Amino acid sequence: MNTFGRLFRVSLYGESHGDSIGVLIDGCPNGIKYNADELIEELKRRKPGKKGTTTRIETDEPIVTSGIFNGYTTGVPINIIFKNNNFKSKDYSELKNKPRPGHSDFTAYKKYSGYNDYRGGGHFSGRLTIGLIAAGYFAKKIIEPVNISAYIKDEYLLEQKIEKAINQNDSLGAIIECKTNNIDIGLGEPFFDKIQAYIAHIIFSIPGIKGIEFGAGFNSANMFGSEMNDEIIDNSGKTKTNNSGGINGGISNRNELIFRVAIKPTSSIGKTQKTINIEKDKYETLEIKGRHDVCFALRVPPVIEAATAIALCDLKLINNSIYKR
Amino acid sequence: MNTFGRLFRVSLYGESHGDSIGVLIDGCPNGIKYNADELIEELKRRKPGKKGTTTRIETDEPIVTSGIFNGYTTGVPINIIFKNNNFKSKDYSELKNKPRPGHSDFTAYKKYSGYNDYRGGGHFSGRLTIGLIAAGYFAKKIIEPVNISAYIKDEYLLEQKIEKAINQNDSLGAIIECKTNNIDIGLGEPFFDKIQAYIAHIIFSIPGIKGIEFGAGFNSANMFGSEMNDEIIDNSGKTKTNNSGGINGGISNRNELIFRVAIKPTSSIGKTQKTINIEKDKYETLEIKGRHDVCFALRVPPVIEAATAIALCDLKLINNSIYKR
Amino acid sequence: MNTFGRLFRVSLYGESHGDSIGVLIDGCPNGIKYNADELIEELKRRKPGKKGTTTRIETDEPIVTSGIFNGYTTGVPINIIFKNNNFKSKDYSELKNKPRPGHSDFTAYKKYSGYNDYRGGGHFSGRLTIGLIAAGYFAKKIIEPVNISAYIKDEYLLEQKIEKAINQNDSLGAIIECKTNNIDIGLGEPFFDKIQAYIAHIIFSIPGIKGIEFGAGFNSANMFGSEMNDEIIDNSGKTKTNNSGGINGGISNRNELIFRVAIKPTSSIGKTQKTINIEKDKYETLEIKGRHDVCFALRVPPVIEAATAIALCDLKLINNSIYKR
Amino acid sequence: MNTFGRLFRVSLYGESHGDSIGVLIDGCPNGIKYNADELIEELKRRKPGKKGTTTRIETDEPIVTSGIFNGYTTGVPINIIFKNNNFKSKDYSELKNKPRPGHSDFTAYKKYSGYNDYRGGGHFSGRLTIGLIAAGYFAKKIIEPVNISAYIKDEYLLEQKIEKAINQNDSLGAIIECKTNNIDIGLGEPFFDKIQAYIAHIIFSIPGIKGIEFGAGFNSANMFGSEMNDEIIDNSGKTKTNNSGGINGGISNRNELIFRVAIKPTSSIGKTQKTINIEKDKYETLEIKGRHDVCFALRVPPVIEAATAIALCDLKLINNSIYKR
Repeated sequence: MNTFGRLFRVSLYGESHGDSIGVLIDGCPNGIKYNADELIEELKRRKPGKKGTTTRIETDEPIVTSGIFNGYTTGVPINIIFKNNNFKSKDYSELKNKPRPGHSDFTAYKKYSGYNDYRGGGHFSGRLTIGLIAAGYFAKKIIEPVNISAYIKDEYLLEQKIEKAINQNDSLGAIIECKTNNIDIGLGEPFFDKIQAYIAHIIFSIPGIKGIEFGAGFNSANMFGSEMNDEIIDNSGKTKTNNSGGINGGISNRNELIFRVAIKPTSSIGKTQKTINIEKDKYETLEIKGRHDVCFALRVPPVIEAATAIALCDLKLINNSIYKR
Repeated sequence: MNTFGRLFRVSLYGESHGDSIGVLIDGCPNGIKYNADELIEELKRRKPGKKGTTTRIETDEPIVTSGIFNGYTTGVPINIIFKNNNFKSKDYSELKNKPRPGHSDFTAYKKYSGYNDYRGGGHFSGRLTIGLIAAGYFAKKIIEPVNISAYIKDEYLLEQKIEKAINQNDSLGAIIECKTNNIDIGLGEPFFDKIQAYIAHIIFSIPGIKGIEFGAGFNSANMFGSEMNDEIIDNSGKTKTNNSGGINGGISNRNELIFRVAIKPTSSIGKTQKTINIEKDKYETLEIKGRHDVCFALRVPPVIEAATAIALCDLKLINNSIYKR
Repeated sequence: MNTFGRLFRVSLYGESHGDSIGVLIDGCPNGIKYNADELIEELKRRKPGKKGTTTRIETDEPIVTSGIFNGYTTGVPINIIFKNNNFKSKDYSELKNKPRPGHSDFTAYKKYSGYNDYRGGGHFSGRLTIGLIAAGYFAKKIIEPVNISAYIKDEYLLEQKIEKAINQNDSLGAIIECKTNNIDIGLGEPFFDKIQAYIAHIIFSIPGIKGIEFGAGFNSANMFGSEMNDEIIDNSGKTKTNNSGGINGGISNRNELIFRVAIKPTSSIGKTQKTINIEKDKYETLEIKGRHDVCFALRVPPVIEAATAIALCDLKLINNSIYKR
Repeated sequence: MNTFGRLFRVSLYGESHGDSIGVLIDGCPNGIKYNADELIEELKRRKPGKKGTTTRIETDEPIVTSGIFNGYTTGVPINIIFKNNNFKSKDYSELKNKPRPGHSDFTAYKKYSGYNDYRGGGHFSGRLTIGLIAAGYFAKKIIEPVNISAYIKDEYLLEQKIEKAINQNDSLGAIIECKTNNIDIGLGEPFFDKIQAYIAHIIFSIPGIKGIEFGAGFNSANMFGSEMNDEIIDNSGKTKTNNSGGINGGISNRNELIFRVAIKPTSSIGKTQKTINIEKDKYETLEIKGRHDVCFALRVPPVIEAATAIALCDLKLINNSIYKR
């Protein structure tokens, strides 16, 4: 269940306040150059630092334990770990019995009958996404020259609201848009593994996502067919408009793949909230200390890019194999 | 790739104008009562008939060829086929070389190097969703007493626009909302098989979906954390508000699971359009004859329900097995 | 659970005395020529007729319901069914409560809490292997020029024993050997999907198999390393001896792939046996009427070939995709 | 490809002379007690030490990096690594261009186009089986009170031959038998996931296995049905004989599950051999230095037990979920 993909298979493990976070990448072709500095550069894009992000700064140094030899992937599983160094577990002691609203604390406690590692959200922490970035690093190389770019929509407006949220010990959400170009025609499989289904699956795996829409998205529900349909203007498949967002019938059509995702505000806020005390079965107030992003969405664009690359990489390997002999 | 699920596994096959449409359901528990009339009733909900839907009416009689014995599921694969009787293939002859805008015609042609069955969209036809309804029939029984209800949002307003679309030989999209109640707490798996990821995967497999959002969805991007967070008010997990849509950390929290999907207007419209003629490599006009829904979204609610039931059924079987020994 | 393969995915369904037996083949590349006569020829090789085989002769005509268009595979799921016509269900009425020794009757009854279709072994019948042959038909074409040949070992000796078995209302087993040539080097995946693991998995899926050995097989347990090791004599990988049976480290080495399987005697024998009466909880005598093979092993060679082709086909598609970009 | 199982999923990674060997266990239920000393005890059973085994002795200390909290499994992925400390990589320098007969050196080189880590067999080393033992540790606890016991057949005779092999710088194979008791009736799935298919798959994943047989195995090919069939003597399913080895129709029948595997002699022998020099394209002599087991089979019984436990654990979770609601 913690694995995504059929051929290019990514598994994530680890807990926020455990020994480390890790990613196992199985099915990565051999001969892909690995350069630690490039990966560190990619990981930095996810790091806090901007106004509106947490003050917990991990070094996030990738430790490759298998699958790379003499600077190249060997074709067998690549395992990469990231040590957890800079955490303060005591910040979370109160939370053991007081599940934070909007968090996985309560559901994880119930699902695992109280055996879950509750510290910092444990396995449900956003910190797990480091592993996605590492896997995406290889995926991007495999799908070259595909180009993926994710960014905050309306970042300027957002910055002004962040100021307000900081002053009120509150948090904020955001919209991220992702555009991908140079995709081959033909990626995506009929019925259940449509390209939008595959991408939505991995995007909704990222913590905090509440919606995704492709091309004209929710607007398409209000459009007439004559407005929505994209005229095909040449034999390469180029269309006049791109309301479909680069996808027809679940298969990439060589136009820009475009989607937007809605990210909710950070659940952990400084403001006083109310919740249930599980042990005492009492409704109590809760003050979350710890260090948290005011708007964790700011750190998500590289994660969205990595997730997209992973999905496209797997679909490309499948497509190459079966249909392009 | 045409299979969904880990334990309750649903595979779809068939083409719009081929012999039949079929569904293979593997991993269905034994002892589930099968009543053909009940299933036919469910299938009727997807049938055309309302204003705004196609005049191609298939009988959609389920023919069970395996897996049911003496009126009960046996525990081995259930195969159900639906004959295609009422089609007019000549309607599609022009389309072989002229891919319809907004359709899979062009991408399917390219992906399969021209070997695809292009008649009526072939394997990409919405008619494949009959199989989902059949699989959903069993899934709903397995997850009882879970209750799933999908419906067109703002149906009244929509009806007025349909009149206009009919007059203009055009088509329309719509929003469908789906509410599920009585779900156990704990469905959904960490990281890649979060309940929203699983549901989004199967929902985006349905032809014509352009977006999905859970709970507060895209609105959450503009909310403060203090507005978004749902206070947990008692030990059952009940929350004061339900902006999360019944999910925390990818796991069901026992509140109502709620999501909305955006459905694009039917791609096949009577209005004259332009497209490329693949053979002649010329930009030409296209007039789609055939019989098509003006607003196929009207027929999708039971499909959404079935897809939701399938996803929940699989997650329930997984959860039962692993975590609730 | 009734599906084999990652990319070339074969699912079997049906019951011996139900409507039909079927096979769903997903992930078959497009553009593979389908010739019904060729497939019927392949199916005939499995048919009874020889001395020592059953008198139940089905027509075994393949009915393709999807995935083939204008004589070629389209790239989407291929579904093929085989109607059951020539059965006599009343032959089995006694067996409902008296599980046949050596058969699945008792275990199926218990696993499925009595909901199983017990007639003729139901889903556990050897008749399901028709579907394997149909899938193998396509697999063989995809892996061309690979050549697979399976045959009864010591067939001459066996024929003499069959005479004796017939006279005693008894049955017999046999050894089948399978040799495959022209396999590419490099098929098979590290650790869990070694070529021998993959082949053993699908071979043991065939009813009645009790053992498999590759190359020197069980003899290798008594050999010295200096006898066992196959010297590599040129850069193509050719070895002087072939004790490894064409496999090193789980990966094909381009020498002949050779394995032998042990097939048990047919469980259904005319001779009086004893068993438990489940309903009465009494130890009783049992006389199996029906029509059965004296030595069903005689019909298994084409099934072994098909199963081998399916496993190699899937491994070839995986290998092409990941390692031979 | 390096993952086994549907629900209880075991992935192996690492190389013989890399940083470490690891195992990722996903789908392990929560609340299983973990005791490092118990696991170390289990790992010791695989360690060299006996006459006939290598002098490379690793400490094999399990380092749990995730999935265990306060001494119990949490329900999320368990990752365990074993550092490689005691290797001498220079021993292998000659082997880069001279593939060892009977080894994966040549096939790995070809499959991965020379990118493979060739030192000590890299990812193909038997050392990877440590991870199986760690996963088997948890599996055994989950399937309690199932009891699995594997041992060398005819160990006494073998010891005398080992003396001879040591004197001749040669190596030896062996037969291992494995008996499992207290299995529930009903494990195993129809057609492709028969219990013997599942077990054979994982057993053949262990390096050096050349054959497997269940119950009467290869002898059954020479038996009459009346000899082979096991009479069912009571309603629990107990049989008079056990030629089927505890399996009917691919499903456990509650009698002892018994199988034997053939293990080839260690490929690395001190004796001079001949092989191809890949670089020079010349047939040359080869002298393998390094430290190797004379009969690595002696160390395999705990690995066979672990592999069996993993297969049974996965089948049990599947069975519980689907058929025993």
